[in-house]
Amino acid sequence: MSGSTYGKLFSFTTWGESHGSALGVVVDGCPAGIPLRPEDIQVFLNRRKPGQSKYTTKRSEEDTVEILSGVFEGRTTGTPISMVVFNKDQRSRDYSEIASYYRPGHADYCFDAKYGFRDYRGGGRSSGRETIGRVAAGAIAMKILHALDIEVSAYAEEIGGIRCSSIDLSLCAKNPFYMPDLEAAKKVQAAAEKQMADKDSMGGVIACIVKNMPVGIGEPVFEKLDANLSKALFSIGAVKAVEIGDGFCSARSSGSENNDSFLPPKQKGGPLQKASNHAGGILGGMSDGSDIFLRAAIKPTPSIAKEQQTVTCTGEPVTVSIRGRHDPIIVPRAVVVVEAMTAVTLVDMLFAGMTAKMDSICRFFGRSNSDI
Amino acid sequence: MSGSTYGKLFSFTTWGESHGSALGVVVDGCPAGIPLRPEDIQVFLNRRKPGQSKYTTKRSEEDTVEILSGVFEGRTTGTPISMVVFNKDQRSRDYSEIASYYRPGHADYCFDAKYGFRDYRGGGRSSGRETIGRVAAGAIAMKILHALDIEVSAYAEEIGGIRCSSIDLSLCAKNPFYMPDLEAAKKVQAAAEKQMADKDSMGGVIACIVKNMPVGIGEPVFEKLDANLSKALFSIGAVKAVEIGDGFCSARSSGSENNDSFLPPKQKGGPLQKASNHAGGILGGMSDGSDIFLRAAIKPTPSIAKEQQTVTCTGEPVTVSIRGRHDPIIVPRAVVVVEAMTAVTLVDMLFAGMTAKMDSICRFFGRSNSDI
Amino acid sequence: MSGSTYGKLFSFTTWGESHGSALGVVVDGCPAGIPLRPEDIQVFLNRRKPGQSKYTTKRSEEDTVEILSGVFEGRTTGTPISMVVFNKDQRSRDYSEIASYYRPGHADYCFDAKYGFRDYRGGGRSSGRETIGRVAAGAIAMKILHALDIEVSAYAEEIGGIRCSSIDLSLCAKNPFYMPDLEAAKKVQAAAEKQMADKDSMGGVIACIVKNMPVGIGEPVFEKLDANLSKALFSIGAVKAVEIGDGFCSARSSGSENNDSFLPPKQKGGPLQKASNHAGGILGGMSDGSDIFLRAAIKPTPSIAKEQQTVTCTGEPVTVSIRGRHDPIIVPRAVVVVEAMTAVTLVDMLFAGMTAKMDSICRFFGRSNSDI
Amino acid sequence: MSGSTYGKLFSFTTWGESHGSALGVVVDGCPAGIPLRPEDIQVFLNRRKPGQSKYTTKRSEEDTVEILSGVFEGRTTGTPISMVVFNKDQRSRDYSEIASYYRPGHADYCFDAKYGFRDYRGGGRSSGRETIGRVAAGAIAMKILHALDIEVSAYAEEIGGIRCSSIDLSLCAKNPFYMPDLEAAKKVQAAAEKQMADKDSMGGVIACIVKNMPVGIGEPVFEKLDANLSKALFSIGAVKAVEIGDGFCSARSSGSENNDSFLPPKQKGGPLQKASNHAGGILGGMSDGSDIFLRAAIKPTPSIAKEQQTVTCTGEPVTVSIRGRHDPIIVPRAVVVVEAMTAVTLVDMLFAGMTAKMDSICRFFGRSNSDI
Repeated sequence: MSGSTYGKLFSFTTWGESHGSALGVVVDGCPAGIPLRPEDIQVFLNRRKPGQSKYTTKRSEEDTVEILSGVFEGRTTGTPISMVVFNKDQRSRDYSEIASYYRPGHADYCFDAKYGFRDYRGGGRSSGRETIGRVAAGAIAMKILHALDIEVSAYAEEIGGIRCSSIDLSLCAKNPFYMPDLEAAKKVQAAAEKQMADKDSMGGVIACIVKNMPVGIGEPVFEKLDANLSKALFSIGAVKAVEIGDGFCSARSSGSENNDSFLPPKQKGGPLQKASNHAGGILGGMSDGSDIFLRAAIKPTPSIAKEQQTVTCTGEPVTVSIRGRHDPIIVPRAVVVVEAMTAVTLVDMLFAGMTAKMDSICRFFGRSNSDI
Repeated sequence: MSGSTYGKLFSFTTWGESHGSALGVVVDGCPAGIPLRPEDIQVFLNRRKPGQSKYTTKRSEEDTVEILSGVFEGRTTGTPISMVVFNKDQRSRDYSEIASYYRPGHADYCFDAKYGFRDYRGGGRSSGRETIGRVAAGAIAMKILHALDIEVSAYAEEIGGIRCSSIDLSLCAKNPFYMPDLEAAKKVQAAAEKQMADKDSMGGVIACIVKNMPVGIGEPVFEKLDANLSKALFSIGAVKAVEIGDGFCSARSSGSENNDSFLPPKQKGGPLQKASNHAGGILGGMSDGSDIFLRAAIKPTPSIAKEQQTVTCTGEPVTVSIRGRHDPIIVPRAVVVVEAMTAVTLVDMLFAGMTAKMDSICRFFGRSNSDI
Repeated sequence: MSGSTYGKLFSFTTWGESHGSALGVVVDGCPAGIPLRPEDIQVFLNRRKPGQSKYTTKRSEEDTVEILSGVFEGRTTGTPISMVVFNKDQRSRDYSEIASYYRPGHADYCFDAKYGFRDYRGGGRSSGRETIGRVAAGAIAMKILHALDIEVSAYAEEIGGIRCSSIDLSLCAKNPFYMPDLEAAKKVQAAAEKQMADKDSMGGVIACIVKNMPVGIGEPVFEKLDANLSKALFSIGAVKAVEIGDGFCSARSSGSENNDSFLPPKQKGGPLQKASNHAGGILGGMSDGSDIFLRAAIKPTPSIAKEQQTVTCTGEPVTVSIRGRHDPIIVPRAVVVVEAMTAVTLVDMLFAGMTAKMDSICRFFGRSNSDI
Repeated sequence: MSGSTYGKLFSFTTWGESHGSALGVVVDGCPAGIPLRPEDIQVFLNRRKPGQSKYTTKRSEEDTVEILSGVFEGRTTGTPISMVVFNKDQRSRDYSEIASYYRPGHADYCFDAKYGFRDYRGGGRSSGRETIGRVAAGAIAMKILHALDIEVSAYAEEIGGIRCSSIDLSLCAKNPFYMPDLEAAKKVQAAAEKQMADKDSMGGVIACIVKNMPVGIGEPVFEKLDANLSKALFSIGAVKAVEIGDGFCSARSSGSENNDSFLPPKQKGGPLQKASNHAGGILGGMSDGSDIFLRAAIKPTPSIAKEQQTVTCTGEPVTVSIRGRHDPIIVPRAVVVVEAMTAVTLVDMLFAGMTAKMDSICRFFGRSNSDI
């Protein structure tokens, strides 16, 4: 079945393999009238590209995006937007050995079983480079959110078990780990050096905050906002858990502690305020007007040079050491992917929410027959 | 937008409010030829019904299901299966006061903002009774899985911070908390007594194990098995987090520890085995043949008799004490809901996986033109 | 695969067989705030029910609809609306013989091949009674259209080759054929008497006009308005062709004749007018502001008492004469079904059209950040 | 809303404008293991490209397709297949005048109303070049059908009112009109010369035959095979009507004439035969095993050099003469588009039909637990 399209109203289809000639995305359902230039997409893609620090893969790619359709005289036309990035630095010889065995922690075995064979070069379709399409689509979604005064910011909350003690988002760009706490970043650097010397890898936790969502976005009971956000995040490779608000801590709390009391709105007619935000901004699957807070747990990079046991494609035991240019830590490059997937989900859900009330619909079309 | 339908190939639409005349579900896409009687559905519904212990709501409902279509001479016909349960013991007078304020931790405020008004009786559409439809659909999905030799079992792994130390699924039915460890259940009983005396509530964690899934089920990159399972679980009211396998523990692990080494299959041609299962049975978004393990964190019941601060529908501060018949702990009754949502997702994904390989498709239709 | 749900944003799922206990529909995605009572649905259902004239089936059904959810204090809540009609006058003995052979012109053989067996009673799932759910959903869609000042009117344009020469919609309810021309109706009556004496049946053409659609509704390139309308109409049993505007006559015309010249709008800022309407109100798959005109060709009722050749379920030739209570002409009862399917499609497409322009979306949410 | 994606299980998204840099398609859900080379796609694209005869547009494009993903070592991998064609011969100066008025019979006005502005160059997104993506996707679908021994053949049955008297598909490639009757083609040539001298255009009717479909494909009640085929055909620009089998002639027939009597199968266990095929191979929305026969009516090309009345974008009356390189007759180039849309629909429906019976599903997965 087709599984490479995300979204119902604002939707996009990604394509491309790590070692194919190009990767890209087609965004469908983007409203017309949004100013859009390649630079707007590039700034997001640059946050995910490889070779930016010694702690991420050494593969060197410019990842320059081209917009091939859907834009006229600098604005989106409402027609599909096709964006492409051409691969430049693929080294297929690094991967030829891998064709003969199943790498632990990777999708090799599953792909083989599912399709009968696989493109073994790099991660094929499950490579991190597949996220190029998501981030490009996310950049457009971010424009839409920006037009609606909604902010989305993700950061590395924890790497290798080392947590941030304070959150200052302006510090994220000032360290190679995209952490909002430079002290924590320093400790992570030391831990990372050690892991790399050990030919091993580390995981982490990415947090994401959404500010200023309208109240009531999300479609009960199955297209809830948190349900769709979790699906979006879990679709990112290496994600093994998602929390909304207090997440697992809620499970260990009591009703009286976990409930967020409502308070009167700041301005008359504005959204209610809350005395706390254990809910993480989502109640009953809909936005409650507070900041939305979510977390994604990222497992450690499976491709490590350290020796591992596994089997060949014919089922024989074998010891392997995976060479090639792999990220010791995926987390820093995955932060923008979490932002992108959050953004596209928010846009799709905002669009879905426009048909909730008959009077809004009448107002939208400038028609109102009260005799019904 | 329509949000009450789940699934693409095996799909179902739930309907009904807590205090309306009935609740139900229409299952669409169920294959023909499956033996089905109301008793098959009833056994699952009985696990979720209220009034079963002092630790769950005292509302008394038989929740007897009727099958109104889609079955002929005892077998499914392939046409939509409509199942209905009529509400008997709704007490609207318990809820009239609630119409005037927004209960903390509930969806009241969000529904009002989204739709302009709400059915304030009981939880309305966000009531736990909405899960009747899901469990009925899940019962049919469980039949399909059973025909394919796939098992799904959920249990309460933790309640109020008290964890099970051992797992013996046969013990679940022998305590009111559906825990597979009687020692833990006893401690939970004591803790529950205390919470109820305090007019407060508790949350917990439900775990679910799937055995014997074929390898390669899940549709990269957006319709991954874990992505869809998480969406299914998050759609259940009160869920605030989902983990697959080691979940957040993966984030604190290293690649060498977290990777599961592959081992030769038990029988020639069978699925590979693994030395460990940190992945929880899913790699690259597809089943890897090992047991699938997932967890859902359930927040404590928001409706408590203990006094809380909130606001009225006109934004004035007010102190409330929520009466009515509410579950001090939702977890025991939610276990079957977790099983149901897991089951319907597995079926939908198994169906989706049938078109992965051209040769399988040719075999299915009994046609094969090799000249392509 | 699930095939009993129609629509993406305003969607509904029908269920029920001709000889099962009930039939119904669940409407999902209906906006909140619409006044709705069973009488509103009943008036549409009454136009399709059997036993209304000697020219339609003699089965006697009240077809009284009950609304089981989704309405509170007389208005839609935005939650799913479940509507049910209980079968009363099913005579299963009329159909027992039919179980042994495949009726020509019916879906019996296809159902058997597809599902392995079939509910042979009445038409099972392919019975005309299945349209009850569609008409009920259509009644709600008509309310939405009415609130938006959009009118949908269908009528029998032709029966048994006898065409209406004039169109006066007020005459439709004054003859048993729902024709807007009493002269034509009289001729049809004579032809119908003859066909019935011959134990045979007749087909016809149903036309439908939509007035006052906003311009630009329809989603190129695959979710065009005409594409979706045709799918909706073809889903009605017995439909064998659909035309938009001049339809097949366009194929025999020239560009200069077929093009509709645009004219200035009636009022400044209003929709353009056209000198003609060969296009039938749809250009490039979008509404152009003129009346939308479409036609559906209905084949003659396949169940006739006249002798026919066919085969038994084991492939043996057999001569049959189909008894039971069948419509000599389906067309009059199908008119409201054409209206219903047109209405639900228009609503779904109107909703889809709300996200076409960024500035409208900003206006809808009351937010506008021009710095994008 | 997103409207540029077609299909549920085998799906594709087209993108690109007539005068943008490129056009393309991403095919998602194509099974793995199908041999695929650019030449396989090119042979279909060559049947639609411009400049092939004096009766079609003089724009000169090679329309060479490149496959950028989804193929490895010559076979489809099961991952998305991105195909691109770069525009070479776009002449934007031919269209600058058109920006100021709304061409009759075109989507200009609708696009402007829908999106607020439009890419006026060529037909923009509603240009015939948009069909490049469809035909490329259709080429892949044809491979799948070929593997299943299913044939799809379309031809021009009628142009400018001149019908074929005989059908010999081998003659289609021997005349510029793709007609299976050289006599008719000669008459059309004369008529075409006259129309072109008149600066006018002609329409026609394209017929399509499908041979050897399995019985029972199609998903009642809304995802019927004919319903989806009609939607697919109506999505092609310029289509104004669709017929299945006898179409409108059925409406004027009687039940005894229109019913197709069933006959015993040719071989034991094979599909039933029928004495006639008025139904066009589809009954109750499902394939009945006979040849599927459908027709699409194509309106005459709206862009003509002959003078027409219309209005400017500001609503002022204006007389125009549309220059540029336009097809006097679209029909010959649209034949392969009808084949393509038919093919992709058949594949999607064949895939959908795989989950109709529980025993087939058990057989597919090689598992069968009879204790259900």
